Amino acid sequence: MNSGELVDLGQQLRVDSVRAAAAAGSGHPTSSMSAADLMAVLLARHLRYDFARPAHPCNDRFILSKGHASPLLYAAYKAAGAIDDEELLTFRELGSRLEGHPTPRRLPWVETATGSLGQGLPVGVGVALAGKRLDRGGDYRVWVLCGDSELAEGSVWEAAEHAAYEHLDNLTAIVDVNRLGQRGPTRHGHDLDAYARRFQAFGWHTIEVDGHDVDAVDRAYGEALSTRGQPTAVLARTLKGKGVAAVEDREGLHGKPLPDADEAVAELGGPRDLRVEVHEPPATRMLHAVRTGHVELPRWDLGEEVATRDAYGKALAALGSGRGDVVALDGEVSDSTRAEFFAKEHPERFFECYIAEQQMVAAAVGLATRGWVPYASSFAAFLTRAHDFVRMAAVSGAGINLVGSHAGVAIGQDGPSQMGLEDLAMFRAVHGSTVLYPCDANQTARLVSAMVGLDGVRYLRTSRGKNAVIYPPDEEFPVGGSKVLRSSAADRLTVVAAGVTVPEALAAADALDARGIQVRVIDLYSVKPVDRATLRQAAEDTGCLLTVEDHHEEGGLGDAVCDAFLDGRPMPRLVRLAVRTMPGSASPAEQLHAAGIDAESITASVELLVEQAVVR
Amino acid sequence: MNSGELVDLGQQLRVDSVRAAAAAGSGHPTSSMSAADLMAVLLARHLRYDFARPAHPCNDRFILSKGHASPLLYAAYKAAGAIDDEELLTFRELGSRLEGHPTPRRLPWVETATGSLGQGLPVGVGVALAGKRLDRGGDYRVWVLCGDSELAEGSVWEAAEHAAYEHLDNLTAIVDVNRLGQRGPTRHGHDLDAYARRFQAFGWHTIEVDGHDVDAVDRAYGEALSTRGQPTAVLARTLKGKGVAAVEDREGLHGKPLPDADEAVAELGGPRDLRVEVHEPPATRMLHAVRTGHVELPRWDLGEEVATRDAYGKALAALGSGRGDVVALDGEVSDSTRAEFFAKEHPERFFECYIAEQQMVAAAVGLATRGWVPYASSFAAFLTRAHDFVRMAAVSGAGINLVGSHAGVAIGQDGPSQMGLEDLAMFRAVHGSTVLYPCDANQTARLVSAMVGLDGVRYLRTSRGKNAVIYPPDEEFPVGGSKVLRSSAADRLTVVAAGVTVPEALAAADALDARGIQVRVIDLYSVKPVDRATLRQAAEDTGCLLTVEDHHEEGGLGDAVCDAFLDGRPMPRLVRLAVRTMPGSASPAEQLHAAGIDAESITASVELLVEQAVVR
Repeated sequence: MNSGELVDLGQQLRVDSVRAAAAAGSGHPTSSMSAADLMAVLLARHLRYDFARPAHPCNDRFILSKGHASPLLYAAYKAAGAIDDEELLTFRELGSRLEGHPTPRRLPWVETATGSLGQGLPVGVGVALAGKRLDRGGDYRVWVLCGDSELAEGSVWEAAEHAAYEHLDNLTAIVDVNRLGQRGPTRHGHDLDAYARRFQAFGWHTIEVDGHDVDAVDRAYGEALSTRGQPTAVLARTLKGKGVAAVEDREGLHGKPLPDADEAVAELGGPRDLRVEVHEPPATRMLHAVRTGHVELPRWDLGEEVATRDAYGKALAALGSGRGDVVALDGEVSDSTRAEFFAKEHPERFFECYIAEQQMVAAAVGLATRGWVPYASSFAAFLTRAHDFVRMAAVSGAGINLVGSHAGVAIGQDGPSQMGLEDLAMFRAVHGSTVLYPCDANQTARLVSAMVGLDGVRYLRTSRGKNAVIYPPDEEFPVGGSKVLRSSAADRLTVVAAGVTVPEALAAADALDARGIQVRVIDLYSVKPVDRATLRQAAEDTGCLLTVEDHHEEGGLGDAVCDAFLDGRPMPRLVRLAVRTMPGSASPAEQLHAAGIDAESITASVELLVEQAVVR
Repeated sequence: MNSGELVDLGQQLRVDSVRAAAAAGSGHPTSSMSAADLMAVLLARHLRYDFARPAHPCNDRFILSKGHASPLLYAAYKAAGAIDDEELLTFRELGSRLEGHPTPRRLPWVETATGSLGQGLPVGVGVALAGKRLDRGGDYRVWVLCGDSELAEGSVWEAAEHAAYEHLDNLTAIVDVNRLGQRGPTRHGHDLDAYARRFQAFGWHTIEVDGHDVDAVDRAYGEALSTRGQPTAVLARTLKGKGVAAVEDREGLHGKPLPDADEAVAELGGPRDLRVEVHEPPATRMLHAVRTGHVELPRWDLGEEVATRDAYGKALAALGSGRGDVVALDGEVSDSTRAEFFAKEHPERFFECYIAEQQMVAAAVGLATRGWVPYASSFAAFLTRAHDFVRMAAVSGAGINLVGSHAGVAIGQDGPSQMGLEDLAMFRAVHGSTVLYPCDANQTARLVSAMVGLDGVRYLRTSRGKNAVIYPPDEEFPVGGSKVLRSSAADRLTVVAAGVTVPEALAAADALDARGIQVRVIDLYSVKPVDRATLRQAAEDTGCLLTVEDHHEEGGLGDAVCDAFLDGRPMPRLVRLAVRTMPGSASPAEQLHAAGIDAESITASVELLVEQAVVR
């Protein structure tokens, strides 16, 4: 396409953005119009992409970080022949693939769900990392179209730091600086230098350009492509609503269809039907030929004292030896999470993300888009930092494994800031998630291995301190299962535990048994999905379930147990032991006792229930 | 103190850090030793603080962002005479005020809990904002001691942006660049310029200094104090473990007591007992004399169609008129959350935080430390971005109000990225939190007003669309209460709803009544604490509770209802309607129907339960 055609294509993208939003009666045409020329030049001149084969390993990758500009994306798909005009006009309808914000669940050309701002660039860094360090022979480029408003998100600067540190010259951020956010002007307006200074300070190459001058944009992209050793940010001065006087560069028009779509289309030169022949990706030379052989998991003897975090690190290293597609990331605490065991054995597949949990999770999502199987770890408490990224990973349908160590008050002296006490609630509420909480080393190793084959967001919770191994190394632990550790016909109650409370529950059962009170003990290592059959049987047999968890009382193990009974069947009596006070510093044993979740507390609770004749 | 004495004081702080960690058998002495000289100079020369009157309005504010260096903080307290040596050696013991990471719940001189890195500076920005814009006459300085590792957190750059934009020259960040993180070197090692470039790009004044040269540090602090119009970052080159050859500048020694504490103390010149006379704060001239008069809440007529987000904005504006201590913050969506109503009426007490939710919540925490009552709003979905800050606010015991708009699938076309479907789970699991979810405008106004007087983190969930007003304007809604909207002796089941599902439940009750099936309807506007008495009565009367919520099935309204029955009493049957699939784009009504939480779905569920004889 020549320059004149590029200008025309930009106008077509605007026209189609306006038409799609008008058809929907909602959407963000003005945010699409500012970036239309940036998109036109990219699509016609620089992107290498086979729309018929979105999984082509050498395709460039495009991420619309400003996901609300979805009309522009869909208009581009139409120009590329991927969708037709009829589908374009289904924008935002029930059942349409063309959602308000693009998601890969519905559209094969979308790499990652966007719509929560400040996430596209972080995920793009993960994709570019795969291209640079893992997908050998894959010299694809990663293009991320960002808004200017979203540069206020700290996650963007975590990504900027990460990308420059890793010399990701296969990554280009295109920033559509249209100076207007949702409710008004951004902090820096059209001051491109302000953004350039920031990106440069973080080690990026920057190019400032008039985002409506197609030749200048073309040169900028070319300069980005030829820049070596560092990522490039193309900072483009644009006008929101460009091309239609009624809305151009005006406040108060974010996220609204144009007041008069027909008039706007006419002003933009009327409908066009330009078709872009997008460049083909280079022929596949060679990409990662992933070896997935036999995995020899580590084994521990019964009675050995091992922390589940140690078992995690060793199992992950073993998994990495057996499977070439497993990669690991950590947030500068790999000596604590034990991801260091993997890092030592597989340094080429380990990604140090430093203290930037949002970027760590985003990079994991990016790696997963390219077929890698990421395990990302930090303290359970600090994964809360990345909650919005986990939420969006679920919207994407991304398959990522997250591992939170140092769960609960059991960590001891470090105090509440370091204690994961909300993590089960956070991960249970993520759509389609799996939540696992092992209590011994062999169980941990099996679950680490089982996570590989699951869909969606998988979470594993590990503990700091050592526990005796209670399961033989060949025991199996299906996801969605549980283990009945004590059972008799005389059981008067069921104690449901997981992780560090399992040994406490067993000790309590022994103490109670010595006093003539038999209780059942269930190890509910699969917190989500939960083993309904076993819980229902226990309810039927014993009539009362006492849950005990090293987590706040809301959203954790106790609530998970309820999940077995929510179809209207008769409920057992339920009693919940959980962390209800704000802990301070103390030894692990003192903490468990103070929180009322140790063996003594369980024993006392059961005795009280017997005394009160709550249990039969 | 002269220079020689400052050097001695630095050594004393090191000695006491080593001794405290040795006594505890854990802790972070090496991270304390790097910053000891920075702290000595601050304490003896620049800080203005009355330890006997920590609430003194003119006290400078000091925040230890690298909270793990708590031994240094406690050693400084001892040097200032605030604690004695005996207490120093209780470090990390059960019941001690001297926790592993400092918290204001236990120590009056701690402004905010730290220990999750990258939070001290963001909160410090909030404190400095109060000093600059609200606490008239309060010319206190805010000093934040940061680690270098934590500068990888994006939240630090959100704070940097915010502080420079607001010209907070009352804020100084002191960065202890000891080049070593927990597991090894940081990205930038001792490259002070790398940090300086970043801070300068964000608009800060920077000073690079040898952090062990007390005179140079003294000059740097002086320069920071005399810098006008912008915040200052003092970037100090230091050595981790400084002063003890066995640990100085060595890897692998993070978070561990020194191998030989006695020898280390000897090497540091032995114990000292220097006492610092910290400068007094200036005499109080005048600070904010907060007016808290009568609050005239807005009123709506029965049947009016009003969105609860509109009611929020109007109620907040009214609250701000009645109470001079109420302030509002928003994350660049005030036209959606309706915080704009407050902003228009009280611009001097409104803080635009742009798209930086972590910084918004941190600033709210900072403002709260100075006695202000912040209401911070964004989309419910995007508050997940600030989860770790909310968690730490609870550790601090900070009193903040957070308001999440656009809850649930009811927002319609925008799709899942914009839908708050995890927020109830997130906020319920926060220690000591309150979670409110109104269904009409008058209820919203009352709850907005009630939040002022509560402790801890308060969360209000609002909705995008309009609903008919169902409560008269004078109706009262105690926190922890609920409203029984339909009730008869013939009730065969209880529908428990909140927010947008309340009108659906009422419509279902009417439809069922027409078919001869009476159901009770409870509006559970107080999700936490929950109205146990009313739920138990309903359980007793009707035997079965059907919960219906516009939220994922985990951690929300349904789980909250269970909370009424967790003491072992007989449970009612429970049935849960919630969002179980990943929504796409569709109209609000289509969304509620697709999720199975509209009136029709409720009606069908009840009929099925009657048919199956689950309900009596």
